[in-house]
Amino acid sequence: MTKGLLIVHTGEGKGKTTAALGMAMRAAGHGLPVCFIQFIKGSWRYGELEAVKRFEELIDFHVMGKGFTWKSENLEEDARLAQEAWAFACQAIDSGNFHTVVLDEFTYLLHYGMLDIEPCLEFLARRNPTQHVVITGRYAPEPLIAAADLVTEMRMIKHPLKSGVKAQKGIEF
Amino acid sequence: MTKGLLIVHTGEGKGKTTAALGMAMRAAGHGLPVCFIQFIKGSWRYGELEAVKRFEELIDFHVMGKGFTWKSENLEEDARLAQEAWAFACQAIDSGNFHTVVLDEFTYLLHYGMLDIEPCLEFLARRNPTQHVVITGRYAPEPLIAAADLVTEMRMIKHPLKSGVKAQKGIEF
Repeated sequence: MTKGLLIVHTGEGKGKTTAALGMAMRAAGHGLPVCFIQFIKGSWRYGELEAVKRFEELIDFHVMGKGFTWKSENLEEDARLAQEAWAFACQAIDSGNFHTVVLDEFTYLLHYGMLDIEPCLEFLARRNPTQHVVITGRYAPEPLIAAADLVTEMRMIKHPLKSGVKAQKGIEF
Repeated sequence: MTKGLLIVHTGEGKGKTTAALGMAMRAAGHGLPVCFIQFIKGSWRYGELEAVKRFEELIDFHVMGKGFTWKSENLEEDARLAQEAWAFACQAIDSGNFHTVVLDEFTYLLHYGMLDIEPCLEFLARRNPTQHVVITGRYAPEPLIAAADLVTEMRMIKHPLKSGVKAQKGIEF
């Protein structure tokens, strides 16, 4: 049975995006094309960006929006940008061009109400049944978890930023 | 404050090795050299191996042992191989050649008693204080967690293999 999986990486811990990046590169290692869509601008920095460049014929990388911060003063504008970003993701999923489509930090759009979850889940349920989709971010809403095939929670057991160590190149970013 | 971190990815869920792979590639994206040592032979397959090849000047990839299965009939031989593998890891950590050294699936050697944990932790405590080390695997022993700076538990919330979907190329391997 070959089935496109809806995969969610959620939780407060580290590794949600990093594991999705590893998955994207592993798929690319197989020669399988991946579309990686980043919904929160600025969450990726030089290291990741340079890394995906080594796979540029296989990993399509896109940054959406003008930088959702989920603290906007202009909720209407945020909702409009979120709609646009989601429409772009739908196109990538519908295109059939990608083995996997990663919606990185997408959960925030749902959690902060910038997008309605019901139409999103309906779209995902209707997608090509062999299409893999990976969604990352904290606060994955319960209906998304219910709809997903594989859900991993990254739990923070210990974090050095809590003991005064600054974020470091090649580790935190 | 620049401090070499001891990072542990543990738990029953997915993403422990994949997040370490993502970290290795992100560091390589910064031009920082990484040594990735796999302690369980055969846990990596074609996708990962081809992916790291794209970073071959920056990611040193090594497979240790003859395939620890932690079900061996010959515990003495296992312990000897585990010692050899650990000695190799110590050399990589001591060399100063790597920004990050990843000990992938290393926890099993500790958990199954193939290696004594105390000398391992003593070595790690004495390492160059700027050296980052990432250890992955289930069953991270409590003293390792206590010694670590950053610990993430990957918790399985839902897994498709439990509902009859087979492992798939580019997703599971």
